[in-house]
Amino acid sequence: MADTGWPGCAKSLKGVILDMCGVLYDSGEGDGVAIHGSVEAVKKLKASDLQLRFCTNETQASRETFVAKLQRLGFDISVSEVFSPAPAAVAVLKDRCLRPHLLVYDGLLPEFDSVDKTNPNCVVIGDAAEKFSYQNLNDAFRVLIGLEKPVLFSLGQGRYYKETDGLKLDVGVYMKALEYACDLKAEVIGKPSPTFFQSVLNDMGLQPHEALMIGDDLVNDVGGAQHCGMKGVQVRTGKYRPSDEKHPTVTADGTCGQPGSGCGHDPQSEALSTP
Amino acid sequence: MADTGWPGCAKSLKGVILDMCGVLYDSGEGDGVAIHGSVEAVKKLKASDLQLRFCTNETQASRETFVAKLQRLGFDISVSEVFSPAPAAVAVLKDRCLRPHLLVYDGLLPEFDSVDKTNPNCVVIGDAAEKFSYQNLNDAFRVLIGLEKPVLFSLGQGRYYKETDGLKLDVGVYMKALEYACDLKAEVIGKPSPTFFQSVLNDMGLQPHEALMIGDDLVNDVGGAQHCGMKGVQVRTGKYRPSDEKHPTVTADGTCGQPGSGCGHDPQSEALSTP
Repeated sequence: MADTGWPGCAKSLKGVILDMCGVLYDSGEGDGVAIHGSVEAVKKLKASDLQLRFCTNETQASRETFVAKLQRLGFDISVSEVFSPAPAAVAVLKDRCLRPHLLVYDGLLPEFDSVDKTNPNCVVIGDAAEKFSYQNLNDAFRVLIGLEKPVLFSLGQGRYYKETDGLKLDVGVYMKALEYACDLKAEVIGKPSPTFFQSVLNDMGLQPHEALMIGDDLVNDVGGAQHCGMKGVQVRTGKYRPSDEKHPTVTADGTCGQPGSGCGHDPQSEALSTP
Repeated sequence: MADTGWPGCAKSLKGVILDMCGVLYDSGEGDGVAIHGSVEAVKKLKASDLQLRFCTNETQASRETFVAKLQRLGFDISVSEVFSPAPAAVAVLKDRCLRPHLLVYDGLLPEFDSVDKTNPNCVVIGDAAEKFSYQNLNDAFRVLIGLEKPVLFSLGQGRYYKETDGLKLDVGVYMKALEYACDLKAEVIGKPSPTFFQSVLNDMGLQPHEALMIGDDLVNDVGGAQHCGMKGVQVRTGKYRPSDEKHPTVTADGTCGQPGSGCGHDPQSEALSTP
């Protein structure tokens, strides 16, 4: 691992925040597959003095369903440790008396059960995947273009993620599509929103410099955490691409993984054992 | 009609370029419907001393099929008078030895019959409408992200257009989606590309100041034509919206149509008879 910033970080470190998809597991058919070393890494962290939280932009399933899947993959994890965009969105909708038109994966709908969805005055999009049909995107567009002050919430702004059968377009791509169609700027709920990271820090009772974020998404995980004053480490799994290490605006505090990188063979154990 | 610039324009005017969808007709089920006054307006223009060309970003059908539809709607029009993006794209692809992955409407495929599509090294998108499924967009994304130097051509960059059953998302929305996903800038073929407008002027043998563009799309028709030195007039039909008349960067040289606007009841005849 590159040691930039590590000595200083390791001393004050009191908590670790882990991204999930691409770090703990690769999604795909069925439950997907755990990434080599990740189950053990979580186990080690739980046995350490460090606090641990999981922070995901996962919006294809409710937290209950999602956590059950991770448990089946062998992870020691509970719902109360997981932060995801949908509950944060529900809080914002209720606070601002907004009634959403939802363009989300069916599995996420239960998270919005308590929200009034009649006569929509905003649109919420998540990682709807196959539900991002032309018809569905057009329906969301028509709701927005018919509003005097269109409001679009995007649950994350990722470009793409990796499933077992290859890269898949993420919600950010459709956020940009609707932004252009309606000439508006979406409000992002989830990583890299500072509000979202701060809610995780608050739950741990930590200051930003006491926490470390580990993710596979350079911009949303690493850059987002750094923007909040945390350290950010990228793992060479999931959506990691070699060009990330020459990114024009975001430089990770550390990068872990893969043979030949000088970082050993097990990115997950390595990332988590270094501090 | 607002008379800004009209006296000067009318004196030197030698040619008129007409947008088609939203100006001559509204698309929709079957052939769509001719807009009131437009068949007669084209007839008047053809009887005048002015040259006439049709310039469309239509990419759902080959020119032959498209022109046959317009003829069924009553228009006096022939294929040689119509300029559309697909033939322009074919010329660019051949010139640069590019082999496209096509994400276009089935009806447009015949335009690309003469192009080598094996082992694609670029992507071309048109107004694919229902073919813009998640799967198809993801396939195009995977081609692009797998190329060392990804090249994306977009046949137009419109936000939306009007069909008889309401507004529909246009190709520009999906262009923005892929631009964001792959962190690239698409090359637009069609309006408002200056190369495209210039090819129409060349065909008429006219200088820009001798020609007038009439369209319903303020940015792509009016702004695009003005950018090339032509006059641009917007009709209050098709995708026209009242906010266009307060647009921050584009001001039409004239705006035509609808009761109460002081412009009479027949936008098409009016726009075409004023010069």
